[in-house]
Amino acid sequence: MNLLIINGVNLSLLGSRETDIYGCIQFEDYLNSLRTKYPKVRLDYLQTDKVEEIASAITGATDVDGIILNPGAYTHTSIVIADAIKAVPVRVVEVHISNLFGREQFRRHSFIAPACAGSISGFGLKGYELAILSFIH
Amino acid sequence: MNLLIINGVNLSLLGSRETDIYGCIQFEDYLNSLRTKYPKVRLDYLQTDKVEEIASAITGATDVDGIILNPGAYTHTSIVIADAIKAVPVRVVEVHISNLFGREQFRRHSFIAPACAGSISGFGLKGYELAILSFIH
Amino acid sequence: MNLLIINGVNLSLLGSRETDIYGCIQFEDYLNSLRTKYPKVRLDYLQTDKVEEIASAITGATDVDGIILNPGAYTHTSIVIADAIKAVPVRVVEVHISNLFGREQFRRHSFIAPACAGSISGFGLKGYELAILSFIH
Amino acid sequence: MNLLIINGVNLSLLGSRETDIYGCIQFEDYLNSLRTKYPKVRLDYLQTDKVEEIASAITGATDVDGIILNPGAYTHTSIVIADAIKAVPVRVVEVHISNLFGREQFRRHSFIAPACAGSISGFGLKGYELAILSFIH
Amino acid sequence: MNLLIINGVNLSLLGSRETDIYGCIQFEDYLNSLRTKYPKVRLDYLQTDKVEEIASAITGATDVDGIILNPGAYTHTSIVIADAIKAVPVRVVEVHISNLFGREQFRRHSFIAPACAGSISGFGLKGYELAILSFIH
Amino acid sequence: MNLLIINGVNLSLLGSRETDIYGCIQFEDYLNSLRTKYPKVRLDYLQTDKVEEIASAITGATDVDGIILNPGAYTHTSIVIADAIKAVPVRVVEVHISNLFGREQFRRHSFIAPACAGSISGFGLKGYELAILSFIH
Amino acid sequence: MNLLIINGVNLSLLGSRETDIYGCIQFEDYLNSLRTKYPKVRLDYLQTDKVEEIASAITGATDVDGIILNPGAYTHTSIVIADAIKAVPVRVVEVHISNLFGREQFRRHSFIAPACAGSISGFGLKGYELAILSFIH
Amino acid sequence: MNLLIINGVNLSLLGSRETDIYGCIQFEDYLNSLRTKYPKVRLDYLQTDKVEEIASAITGATDVDGIILNPGAYTHTSIVIADAIKAVPVRVVEVHISNLFGREQFRRHSFIAPACAGSISGFGLKGYELAILSFIH
Amino acid sequence: MNLLIINGVNLSLLGSRETDIYGCIQFEDYLNSLRTKYPKVRLDYLQTDKVEEIASAITGATDVDGIILNPGAYTHTSIVIADAIKAVPVRVVEVHISNLFGREQFRRHSFIAPACAGSISGFGLKGYELAILSFIH
Amino acid sequence: MNLLIINGVNLSLLGSRETDIYGCIQFEDYLNSLRTKYPKVRLDYLQTDKVEEIASAITGATDVDGIILNPGAYTHTSIVIADAIKAVPVRVVEVHISNLFGREQFRRHSFIAPACAGSISGFGLKGYELAILSFIH
Amino acid sequence: MNLLIINGVNLSLLGSRETDIYGCIQFEDYLNSLRTKYPKVRLDYLQTDKVEEIASAITGATDVDGIILNPGAYTHTSIVIADAIKAVPVRVVEVHISNLFGREQFRRHSFIAPACAGSISGFGLKGYELAILSFIH
Amino acid sequence: MNLLIINGVNLSLLGSRETDIYGCIQFEDYLNSLRTKYPKVRLDYLQTDKVEEIASAITGATDVDGIILNPGAYTHTSIVIADAIKAVPVRVVEVHISNLFGREQFRRHSFIAPACAGSISGFGLKGYELAILSFIH
Repeated sequence: MNLLIINGVNLSLLGSRETDIYGCIQFEDYLNSLRTKYPKVRLDYLQTDKVEEIASAITGATDVDGIILNPGAYTHTSIVIADAIKAVPVRVVEVHISNLFGREQFRRHSFIAPACAGSISGFGLKGYELAILSFIH
Repeated sequence: MNLLIINGVNLSLLGSRETDIYGCIQFEDYLNSLRTKYPKVRLDYLQTDKVEEIASAITGATDVDGIILNPGAYTHTSIVIADAIKAVPVRVVEVHISNLFGREQFRRHSFIAPACAGSISGFGLKGYELAILSFIH
Repeated sequence: MNLLIINGVNLSLLGSRETDIYGCIQFEDYLNSLRTKYPKVRLDYLQTDKVEEIASAITGATDVDGIILNPGAYTHTSIVIADAIKAVPVRVVEVHISNLFGREQFRRHSFIAPACAGSISGFGLKGYELAILSFIH
Repeated sequence: MNLLIINGVNLSLLGSRETDIYGCIQFEDYLNSLRTKYPKVRLDYLQTDKVEEIASAITGATDVDGIILNPGAYTHTSIVIADAIKAVPVRVVEVHISNLFGREQFRRHSFIAPACAGSISGFGLKGYELAILSFIH
Repeated sequence: MNLLIINGVNLSLLGSRETDIYGCIQFEDYLNSLRTKYPKVRLDYLQTDKVEEIASAITGATDVDGIILNPGAYTHTSIVIADAIKAVPVRVVEVHISNLFGREQFRRHSFIAPACAGSISGFGLKGYELAILSFIH
Repeated sequence: MNLLIINGVNLSLLGSRETDIYGCIQFEDYLNSLRTKYPKVRLDYLQTDKVEEIASAITGATDVDGIILNPGAYTHTSIVIADAIKAVPVRVVEVHISNLFGREQFRRHSFIAPACAGSISGFGLKGYELAILSFIH
Repeated sequence: MNLLIINGVNLSLLGSRETDIYGCIQFEDYLNSLRTKYPKVRLDYLQTDKVEEIASAITGATDVDGIILNPGAYTHTSIVIADAIKAVPVRVVEVHISNLFGREQFRRHSFIAPACAGSISGFGLKGYELAILSFIH
Repeated sequence: MNLLIINGVNLSLLGSRETDIYGCIQFEDYLNSLRTKYPKVRLDYLQTDKVEEIASAITGATDVDGIILNPGAYTHTSIVIADAIKAVPVRVVEVHISNLFGREQFRRHSFIAPACAGSISGFGLKGYELAILSFIH
Repeated sequence: MNLLIINGVNLSLLGSRETDIYGCIQFEDYLNSLRTKYPKVRLDYLQTDKVEEIASAITGATDVDGIILNPGAYTHTSIVIADAIKAVPVRVVEVHISNLFGREQFRRHSFIAPACAGSISGFGLKGYELAILSFIH
Repeated sequence: MNLLIINGVNLSLLGSRETDIYGCIQFEDYLNSLRTKYPKVRLDYLQTDKVEEIASAITGATDVDGIILNPGAYTHTSIVIADAIKAVPVRVVEVHISNLFGREQFRRHSFIAPACAGSISGFGLKGYELAILSFIH
Repeated sequence: MNLLIINGVNLSLLGSRETDIYGCIQFEDYLNSLRTKYPKVRLDYLQTDKVEEIASAITGATDVDGIILNPGAYTHTSIVIADAIKAVPVRVVEVHISNLFGREQFRRHSFIAPACAGSISGFGLKGYELAILSFIH
Repeated sequence: MNLLIINGVNLSLLGSRETDIYGCIQFEDYLNSLRTKYPKVRLDYLQTDKVEEIASAITGATDVDGIILNPGAYTHTSIVIADAIKAVPVRVVEVHISNLFGREQFRRHSFIAPACAGSISGFGLKGYELAILSFIH
């Protein structure tokens, strides 16, 4: 099984930025532990701050079995990424590290959510593992 | 480990109601398969259409390690259940079978979500298993 | 022909509550006169203040030819009843004794109306008879 | 008994326009069947696309026992017709062929409804008969 | 001096409609008393229920020194009349018999007012005389 | 003098739930101290989580001199309780333990307040005593 | 006849401030010309920038036949002045020099207008004369 | 090819009204130049200020290959015209002479646009030619 | 014990203004009866129509045990008074004679309430006594 | 004549993405057919998913006679592109392949439209040709 | 150079009120240090809690080179002060000690800001010095 | 002292774009004059149209004493930049050349402002100097 994990803007700071909200583990370390735990799943990974690279990664992902997407703050403002998800047949699962509903009001609006198949939020980095499990079970 | 699953209003109809949205498996059958698959997890179960029973089940759940809650349509209207969640220290994870964001506009507002630790939606019945996994991993 | 009439919350007070709006006839007396007038129609009747009993009466009404529903104040707040109506194939007709549009602003919003087949309001108790006629003609 | 039926804009197309919503019977044919069925009721009829003719028909209807009004799309935009209804003592009953609440959002607002005595919607052409029955019973 | 008075929809009912709000004098009688009182002012008069006739009367009024306009309920809904006022150089003064601000909420919005030079409301029929005086003083 | 105190949903948790907001005294202990302090006032008491039991307690309270009502979270969502208050002639005084205006935005809207005679909030449990005093002075 | 003219905040600047909107005549000069023209009308005058002085002038005006009020910018923000108008039986007529509806959006909301008997706006200083005429005719 | 051009309210003033926005050519002159330029296209033309005539022209246009519609100010207020467009199978293209989005806020809302196949605005009278070209190419 | 009672704008009219809402007792008479009834409580009193005097009375009240504040119509518009309350450590209790929630919509918004410790409304002048009791019990 | 066509985000997918909305022709093929058809017009072309490249292409286009812009989903969210259009004297015409008004609600808001000279939408790829014709006629 | 500094309501409390937000230096001390530092600038100073005194200070400031204005809480509610600023040609610079955007939602709306030439906020007392520098550089 | 100045989208056009709003000096020229005037302050400079480069410049600025940020139109739409500011401990001061509050309504909303320490707007290019002075004084 081949999954693509896409992390959006500011997520390169995981482990150092606002650690009370996002925790203090770097994503690459966590990703490696996932690869070890799920050896039969190929986990491609893209971190980019550019909205257009997220969109083209989604529309170009013709050979994956699923996409795990954390668009960061683009969740609330980007119709472009939502359109990209709707443009491809691949199943996209949205992951948010924190519970967006418990934060500022403007984080409750999502252009992305209606386009995704499923959504997982508030479980910290473990949300990525749950997303993987949603594909492999 | 001891988890309490609470299903709210109209969820007794699972398997027969709007099967294009909710699927055609009865919840009890699915629950038994989960019990078989996770023998070390005790899964208590409550299905009730009454908002006050959901609230008192939450506030009375002093001996569980976590609650998996699908309040059904009460998600969008019940401050009472949200207050019950905030009144107890136990971790509550919200599960929705369908992707609420892809349905009617009024299903996008949630009183429950800000009170929960995490949220899983859009994975069908598998969402309950992911919620269990969020506790046992 | 078999019809189920469901009266919701506070409607047990008909005949004594706010008689300038709702009139001063008790519903049971009126119902008996309807049964006499339409002997070929079986009129089952449920009055309950509980939203969950209204919902389960609707979803359990597998053997009726139609439901005549006056949810009272739940009209404006209950997604649960609306979901119950959408969950069953039986035709549901909504009746309101007073003209909701001529009253407070919050009575103009209805979660129930979009789920019903038809709506009759403002005709006093005669609205129930018109609803019956909508089925038997 | 003397009743005036007023059909507003675009209702001359009944039977050919959007037949999935409005059915395929012409109103004149239906009206004749009503006249045959209720010989003691005189049913005057006006179909006009002009808002001012609807208003003046209402304010000029000094010798009728009731008005059955389907203003079509003017329901949502015309304060003029609502003022005309309020200007006369005659009882006006509003009829809509389709269930407005199940259609576009802008069809849920009505200037007419607060001015009418009663409202019947969603019963197809049968709504006119129910309106007649509301007067003659 | 040549003034054109335009009365819009339902104002033909003045003297009989909702007399607690609009008074019980017919406009023609009042108009004649004004003509007697102000013999040097030619008062042309148009009463019409048709929005397009109001608009064309305004745009065609090339030889008048001013227009006194009471559009009735069109005040709140007609962009067409507002556009007509803006299309001509003649000064238009708006008159309302009742104080619109003391009535229903929807009567507080006006498309007409921003296009007029001045506005007089709440003085009953005397408002027309004040409007005339605004031109002749 | 005979007063009925009604406590709504989640108020059975007083003394243990969110003690920083609601304090740590159990209501029954407080109630007994009030009965001792005001021996001439009969204080009936109902605690229920069910909206329909609150409503029927109000409409059934034909022999009391006043009702002291703390509907808890139903304050913000229940038209049913508001309708029950309006349906009876007895004077109802609303008590809230915390100052609702200093909390979440959604707690500022009340369906109950317009139906009550008076409102007391923010005085902790002492609010109930002030409500009693409002009746007995 | 005894009338009280009250000019509110910033109106002391008339004749020098934003002369394209308000004209370049000082109010006192204009007032004197009115007194000369209408010798039988006693015109008391108060100009104050203080909202409380406007309110107390209104509530203290027990011996006048009418009040002509131009509250300036307080029109849009002061409930206090509106309450003062409602507290007294004297007829209050509102005058605005400019057409408020043709200016900024926030100038379209008025707390004052619903409390006044009539309103005159957009006629420049002549609006005061029209207001006087509304009393003496 | 047979096309019907419909111009709505106030468009008879083209060439004289607000020439800075609408230009100073009369529509009939422009239409004749189009007929000369596109001899193979039959261009029927209707200018009317009446909303009901626009609607009936649309619903009666059973023998045209397309309709070019400029409803003028009715664009923003008329559900009736929108319903007429939806009632017929003929392709309707909307033309606006000015760029509505660059004008007042209320001109940005359109009931007509969702019902049309395409929309052209801001090109002056040339917009009509582009609409013709959209049919004949 | 030393309490400061502050009455805001228009409250000097108590006893004569809108007596159906506010009653017909003058506040000074009522205050004297309170002083007699509670001899151990020193009741200082300030009535002022000026928002700045209310604010400075609050911020200058360094030697009182509590403030009882009825800001009148400033309740709905004054951030200044709310800021003054937040600037001092003294406990401020808000009193309203009428039930604000049962009156106009704009009286439901309060800048003051979130800054106060408690709120009492709808009990007429007795509300002041309840406020005193909230301090001395 | 020299025109610049700019296609924004996701438009590289034309011909494969959501073909029921956007059609199944690739843009480059269509562009070549246009170049053949209009040999005297030089058609430069830029497709980019990056909002900053669209903006700089517009502000750098000092030697073109016009810009044809389809910003895709940036239409609804990008003030940057709108500012770029306003920063240059060149005429920009907006083209949308689908009728935005017939799709989701959020596609009805446009930051771009008020900055453009004209707008063409709903004509499929033919919209680009119409835009060219708007320049060359 | 002659500058006028105006501090509005509650700013007399600087140094003692909410010192976590506003700091603990008294304004007069700070002002003297500024006068020492900028000896060539005459710094007149007015602190008043009265909205009308702020307005008249602005409109009366005919001989100053600039005004530095901190209206305190009047920022959000006073159209009067905004009108005063617009009524005079002198350049007014707005200073706020705290960053209003980081506080309550209602502090984000400003009637004053659109009328000022520039705005400085969030720099504590240093904001006044920056405002001075904006004039003297 | 080491400061980083970041100019966002379209600011490369300073000196040529909308010179009535933004002036006609190029930023680099102005920057050099600042470097000359404040030789002890190292002024790093980044101009980029890319939102992700602004964000990474902020999160990467670990060795500066402060950031002066003019995000241009991203001010109103970018949560990403606001999150970047919140992710770093460095003090960020926002500068806008024009007074945003005096322009279009949509420029009044800012995601950036709540995350910044201070804000300076409306002083033209001098705003940058004031921002520098806010750090070095």
